[in-house]
Amino acid sequence: VLRLISKVRKFFEKAWSVGVDDPRKVIHCFKVGLALTVVSLFYYMRPLHQGLGGNAMWAVLTVVVVFEYTVGATLYKSLNRAAGTLLAGALAVGVHWFASQSGETFEAIILRTSVFLLASAATFSRFIPVVKARFDYGAMIFILTFSLVSVSAYRVDKLFDLAHQRFSTVAIGIFMCVLIGILICPVWAGQDLHLLIVRNMEKIANSLDGCVSEYYSSTVIDDDEEYSKKIKGYKCVLNSKGSEESLANLARWEPPHGRFSFRHPWNQYLKIGSLIRNCAYCIEALNGCIYSEIQAHELIKKHLSSHCMRLSSNSSTVLKELAVITKTMKKSSTIDVSVAEMNSAVQDLQNALKMNFLPTQLIPSLLTSVEETRDLILTMATTSVPVLLEVLPLVTVTSLLIEISARIGEIVYA
Amino acid sequence: VLRLISKVRKFFEKAWSVGVDDPRKVIHCFKVGLALTVVSLFYYMRPLHQGLGGNAMWAVLTVVVVFEYTVGATLYKSLNRAAGTLLAGALAVGVHWFASQSGETFEAIILRTSVFLLASAATFSRFIPVVKARFDYGAMIFILTFSLVSVSAYRVDKLFDLAHQRFSTVAIGIFMCVLIGILICPVWAGQDLHLLIVRNMEKIANSLDGCVSEYYSSTVIDDDEEYSKKIKGYKCVLNSKGSEESLANLARWEPPHGRFSFRHPWNQYLKIGSLIRNCAYCIEALNGCIYSEIQAHELIKKHLSSHCMRLSSNSSTVLKELAVITKTMKKSSTIDVSVAEMNSAVQDLQNALKMNFLPTQLIPSLLTSVEETRDLILTMATTSVPVLLEVLPLVTVTSLLIEISARIGEIVYA
Repeated sequence: VLRLISKVRKFFEKAWSVGVDDPRKVIHCFKVGLALTVVSLFYYMRPLHQGLGGNAMWAVLTVVVVFEYTVGATLYKSLNRAAGTLLAGALAVGVHWFASQSGETFEAIILRTSVFLLASAATFSRFIPVVKARFDYGAMIFILTFSLVSVSAYRVDKLFDLAHQRFSTVAIGIFMCVLIGILICPVWAGQDLHLLIVRNMEKIANSLDGCVSEYYSSTVIDDDEEYSKKIKGYKCVLNSKGSEESLANLARWEPPHGRFSFRHPWNQYLKIGSLIRNCAYCIEALNGCIYSEIQAHELIKKHLSSHCMRLSSNSSTVLKELAVITKTMKKSSTIDVSVAEMNSAVQDLQNALKMNFLPTQLIPSLLTSVEETRDLILTMATTSVPVLLEVLPLVTVTSLLIEISARIGEIVYA
Repeated sequence: VLRLISKVRKFFEKAWSVGVDDPRKVIHCFKVGLALTVVSLFYYMRPLHQGLGGNAMWAVLTVVVVFEYTVGATLYKSLNRAAGTLLAGALAVGVHWFASQSGETFEAIILRTSVFLLASAATFSRFIPVVKARFDYGAMIFILTFSLVSVSAYRVDKLFDLAHQRFSTVAIGIFMCVLIGILICPVWAGQDLHLLIVRNMEKIANSLDGCVSEYYSSTVIDDDEEYSKKIKGYKCVLNSKGSEESLANLARWEPPHGRFSFRHPWNQYLKIGSLIRNCAYCIEALNGCIYSEIQAHELIKKHLSSHCMRLSSNSSTVLKELAVITKTMKKSSTIDVSVAEMNSAVQDLQNALKMNFLPTQLIPSLLTSVEETRDLILTMATTSVPVLLEVLPLVTVTSLLIEISARIGEIVYA
């Protein structure tokens, strides 16, 4: 029993932390409650009840099913539901009329086969990628309405009335949801996507900084927990693809809001997102090298550390500036300078690898002892360099990122 | 108009290819059609219609909403729907009884506040991760049923009848779905997950082979397209996390089937999946190095190529054997040998880096010309080695993978 209690307590603690982390979620819950209460008030009013009949419960049903967390999702479901209901209703009425013209024996057969065929076709359409991304819910509602109408039509014989009633109740529900969703503390999928991308950029920058400085710092860092959390930031970027895509899909349904105009290029966000993910892969590999068993010679580490640190801090500066640019949606004049600095840091590092190294350090030591040199070359070959070389693709990706984001800068903010 | 026609044709071609790629999807569509037709037949039969009233359409609704592609998803939705309906129905009846005891003015207030509060609470519970993964749909149905019942109760006054009818119609729909879903060509989420993991292992093995051999082959490979497709195989592994998790979630709901017993450790699949993804990250980094601008000296490349090729082919053999083991779910005796071979290949490579290299090749050349040596060391340092060193974490991951899969072997197949 005690274990059960502690489990329940843990559950509630978790629930509490969900609410504290994102108060918008709590507000959303009250919005759903409000929408439901308002819609059921409609039902309590006599005149409306006379007009819409028992179908008023469809309004309640619509609210429950359609009301989603983000405005985009609500609109997506609403529009799909409306379109699906309308299309299926019209088609069902048509089929019913056609069936009623062809005698009683055929009527049932035609109705049943049409349900079978159209349900199969609509289900199949849900597997096609384009349909799945945008009209999945609409296809389901299409099947639903079509089979409901053609099944009830057989009995009720007041087909047009039914179709009309259903559509008006659904419309009431949808209107309610959209109204409450947009007016009271709206949660925009587009804004969420925007923030997600910005946050991911910042995380990558922090991880890069953290990784390289940890590699080159000889002392153990004090505030270990927060620090390692910073470094591990890139891990969530690795698997962000799914949420980015769904947010972008939903953002397309949203009306212009805030700083986002009507045809905001949401696809660009996906492109940037995948570039950021590429950076995260590089950092993952870099991290692997840092914690690998083979460690570089202290001397070489020291020699290259200044260049590496400079490069990584430059790269992360560029990333952070990109994050700011994306956040404020304003072109920044300093970004070009930072990029130029980063590129020169890359050049320096390459030069350091090629030139400085061998003449000044190796050759004197070659003269003193062959043994020592061997060790030196060996360790140099095995660890320090790969770390640098993994920074290089990162840098390439970063500069690609800069290019793309500059292009977006032109598209969006100009 | 012509463009529209070509667009429509393209759409249908795409749809056709979806059907050809996976005929199970086509079968699924006909299953949905069949289930709907059978359920609507229930509705056409007079006696049942008398018993269940206009609520028979709930059976149709249930079929449309609950019938999903995999058995796991259908069961998940069915059980959630049943539990949600039952719980909400019971609660609604309770609240209604309580409200009816407290006078007419209070009745409406109590009903409305209870709808508001419970809808808010249930919506909030959908944000809690545990609930979201397993009972998301049930929570939605809970809100739906509760508000429907407490809204209609006010009018209909035949509360128990309504609740009873709804539950029996929902039960008919669910029974239909589960029956048709399991009996006719079932699609098991568990099996899909199993195959996904096996396929990912094979893809990683192929990519690893392809990468390393492309790096060390001087000639351009002929059948370019298929070959590069093989190498790019790891790309889909990178983003497989989402589908793996959802499949594992659904697989938990499935009854024992085929070679999967009741409490099959689906979590282990997730662990293996994430290890495979780690491998994919390494290959991504390896790929980056291979296509980077700086290329190694031919001599060194040749010197290390045999070791590298051996290591990569050993690693991919191990991976392929693991795939076979996972596929057949039988312990293989050869796996230990392969692992030992791979480990020895790692040792050889490390030795090649440490020893062979410098005495036999560097020191003679040191004597001939300092210039040449510098070039040699330089190129050695910059490219060949990092490639190898990136193989190393891969190998570590692989051996981890082996350990884990051996442990699974003990759990599952013993």
